[in-house]
Amino acid sequence: MENIKSIEKEFIDLLHEIDAYREVITLTQWDLRTKIPPKGVEQRSEVVGVLSEKVHQLETSEKMKQYIDALKNKTEDKIIQKAVETCEETYNRSSKIPIAEFKEYVMVQSKSEAIWQEAREKADFSLFQPYLEKLVDFNKKFANYWGYKDNIYDALLHNFEPGMTTKILDEVFSKLRQALTGLLSKINASTTKPDSSVLIGHFPKSNQEAFTVEVLKQMGYDFESGRLDETIHPFEITLNMNDVRITTRYDEEDFRMAVFGTIHEGGHALYEQNISPKLARTPLATGTSMGIHESQSLFWENFVSRSKAFWGNNYDLLKSYAPDAFEHVTLEDFYCAINEVKPSFIRIEADELTYALHIMIRYELEKGLMNGEMEVKDLPQLWNEKMEDYLGIKPPTDKEGVLQDIHWAGGDFGYFPSYALGYMYAAQFHHTMKKELNVDQLIASGDLAPIKEWLTKHIHQYGKMKKPLEIIEDVTEEKLNSDYLVQYLTEKYTDIYGL
Amino acid sequence: MENIKSIEKEFIDLLHEIDAYREVITLTQWDLRTKIPPKGVEQRSEVVGVLSEKVHQLETSEKMKQYIDALKNKTEDKIIQKAVETCEETYNRSSKIPIAEFKEYVMVQSKSEAIWQEAREKADFSLFQPYLEKLVDFNKKFANYWGYKDNIYDALLHNFEPGMTTKILDEVFSKLRQALTGLLSKINASTTKPDSSVLIGHFPKSNQEAFTVEVLKQMGYDFESGRLDETIHPFEITLNMNDVRITTRYDEEDFRMAVFGTIHEGGHALYEQNISPKLARTPLATGTSMGIHESQSLFWENFVSRSKAFWGNNYDLLKSYAPDAFEHVTLEDFYCAINEVKPSFIRIEADELTYALHIMIRYELEKGLMNGEMEVKDLPQLWNEKMEDYLGIKPPTDKEGVLQDIHWAGGDFGYFPSYALGYMYAAQFHHTMKKELNVDQLIASGDLAPIKEWLTKHIHQYGKMKKPLEIIEDVTEEKLNSDYLVQYLTEKYTDIYGL
Repeated sequence: MENIKSIEKEFIDLLHEIDAYREVITLTQWDLRTKIPPKGVEQRSEVVGVLSEKVHQLETSEKMKQYIDALKNKTEDKIIQKAVETCEETYNRSSKIPIAEFKEYVMVQSKSEAIWQEAREKADFSLFQPYLEKLVDFNKKFANYWGYKDNIYDALLHNFEPGMTTKILDEVFSKLRQALTGLLSKINASTTKPDSSVLIGHFPKSNQEAFTVEVLKQMGYDFESGRLDETIHPFEITLNMNDVRITTRYDEEDFRMAVFGTIHEGGHALYEQNISPKLARTPLATGTSMGIHESQSLFWENFVSRSKAFWGNNYDLLKSYAPDAFEHVTLEDFYCAINEVKPSFIRIEADELTYALHIMIRYELEKGLMNGEMEVKDLPQLWNEKMEDYLGIKPPTDKEGVLQDIHWAGGDFGYFPSYALGYMYAAQFHHTMKKELNVDQLIASGDLAPIKEWLTKHIHQYGKMKKPLEIIEDVTEEKLNSDYLVQYLTEKYTDIYGL
Repeated sequence: MENIKSIEKEFIDLLHEIDAYREVITLTQWDLRTKIPPKGVEQRSEVVGVLSEKVHQLETSEKMKQYIDALKNKTEDKIIQKAVETCEETYNRSSKIPIAEFKEYVMVQSKSEAIWQEAREKADFSLFQPYLEKLVDFNKKFANYWGYKDNIYDALLHNFEPGMTTKILDEVFSKLRQALTGLLSKINASTTKPDSSVLIGHFPKSNQEAFTVEVLKQMGYDFESGRLDETIHPFEITLNMNDVRITTRYDEEDFRMAVFGTIHEGGHALYEQNISPKLARTPLATGTSMGIHESQSLFWENFVSRSKAFWGNNYDLLKSYAPDAFEHVTLEDFYCAINEVKPSFIRIEADELTYALHIMIRYELEKGLMNGEMEVKDLPQLWNEKMEDYLGIKPPTDKEGVLQDIHWAGGDFGYFPSYALGYMYAAQFHHTMKKELNVDQLIASGDLAPIKEWLTKHIHQYGKMKKPLEIIEDVTEEKLNSDYLVQYLTEKYTDIYGL
């Protein structure tokens, strides 16, 4: 027993060391995206390389293996047990790929991103095709190294959504797709059309910032444990649980980018700011999966800040910051305008309803590639067919089609489903929360604290102590269920579009 | 030979690794002083602790010792030879202090800073005295571990100004003190009195910033390799030679803090931005000493930006940014006002003439303590006596006297002389530069590039490839000579005060 205690201490010291590297690497990433002068980038990149290799060495070290073997299922400390499991997972996944192969992969990856950029600009898929083929092959090989039970794609899903399987996704996505395309047909057929052009109008950057800061404070984002900066691509980044930063982007003619974008990142940040301090400086002190993380950002962005209750309380405040822009726009027209549904080519510009359809297209293609049922060369055509099938529109070129996202160029397969999962999780949490809290009334009164507290109590505090599907079942007392998203969207759009 | 080459490669890899840690620790320090949210500080401090220990381990590792032994005077590469010497120096100084003793010292240090703060606020030296006594004892012990030839204080000077000795300082400071106090008597007796109250007036922060940015660009500060932020205590910090940041502080009623402060930090930054790229990622890629560094900041602050030529060219620009503030102030009155001489209690607020006298007081006390000729308990009285002797004024309390600086609380003995040395170095460089360039005419025309290039050619590019006194002798073809500073000040104040 005494021995276990001393091994635990050594293990914790190693976790702290790894976490120190993680924190400074993260600081470096924040600085690279927000503050670094252009000529400083080159050497900084080499610095990140040196430190990342250090982390990799520690995570796959002989010492780490010894601690895992000595502590797994032997420690009585629940946090240490979970940390051991997480470290074992990392150890296995990292050590199963032969080093030479991984280095080759990293080289292909970095080349691919540059080539993808060129291919996208030129709308020429053939430039990207050979690289994408290599990346697909590498991912297939890695998936086989890592192993899987039913479907090779499960091994990739596991990287982003532990426990998620192709079987589950096929089922929920199929139901969801039918419901969404059905709803979309009705909306398209409706004669009621919200007019989003009323949202366009001059809104000074500093005023947009002041408004978003007020909303972030309403949400409970702690500015003593975070800060807001400006970047081209907004993001949330966690230095430590008391230093959770977000960024946003301002368009002075269209406030939606900054306002909804900041609330989205603020949702991610609330998750990270409210993890239990007991997990600090361990690999457990972060969101449990991409999907659960996205559920938090989407909860705040869509379920809170695109709701009628929210604008009932905040529309005057918004108008006070942009006195001329919305003078003649009624609250009702404003609410309908920010919820306009309109099939579009670009995923990141999609509305609440069509977004998940964009994701399903990517999911089906990734699954097809990994299972050898599709070939890279056929992707542009398959993409366009699915766009027409699900959204009723066909991209004019591959730039607005198969080449639009960076993910595949970075070798990230299995990532996309988390976006749609996050949306379904959020709806399912929302449904459960409404049983316990009068959510709309709280939002309408501006008292968002009980909502944040509910999310912290049921989700945030656990960090990686629970797996994503474990959280879903613990909180909602049922399995993943896409009905709640469908129900939410149906109610919402029935009202807006008079269906 | 083949063997030497491969050891050189391994040695360089180790230097790169150490430098990667240095760069991220430095980024962390920048972030701690400029951007970090308050609650993030605690964990960040632990992170810095972990990484600093790592650097210490690498610098004193067995491997490092092996490389030093294998390469010293055996490598044919001059840069590697210098890097080996620098690493040996660090190795020796770090490894000579027993670890337990050093840890105790660090603890006393960190307590002392807090106690000093309290003592200063309460103007109560007795609170600080026992801590200062311990710090003096530690420094004496360390000096003995490190060794010295003539005077124990030399071992401490070496940390900040390698090659500098008590013997040299006694000689130059004695001459300088006589000259400065003589000049000060004449100024005090003069009926001509510049009126610095004309400098006080509203000058919006954003305009001060715009003006200082223009001046920094004139100086040749490269904003693609740096950035300017706002802090309470301005500083220059080097992430890498292409990321050299500065900070400043704005007082909207008195532009001097921001303008002269930024130019000062800009002078430090020019040094760091213009070190030879060949030295990148080695311990040689920084200024060679505190004193030479200060010579660069003071050169720009005093010899350039407090000159008549500079304001002849820039006064209209300044006025364009502060249209009402200096409307009725002539260029001549402005120039005299920014060069007012007035004995004052606080070192960092001192003018060009009295500054060095403040330094000499500290030097004499430090030397006396280290040589056992003075005792800590007598410092307040000794301080005040020297203030009266050199500056003719006596601090009302110890807050404006012996307790004003943080240096001793941090255990930094041997640091102060570098400030005055920097001033003498700057005057000596200025004298030499004037033989080769028409300095005043260049400044008057706003063409500062040849001045920056001269400094780069003779000083900046070498980084730590040359020791401070080596640079002085190579550039000016003589030893350190305080006459040039005296000559410069005499000319300047004879003009301003009609002596």
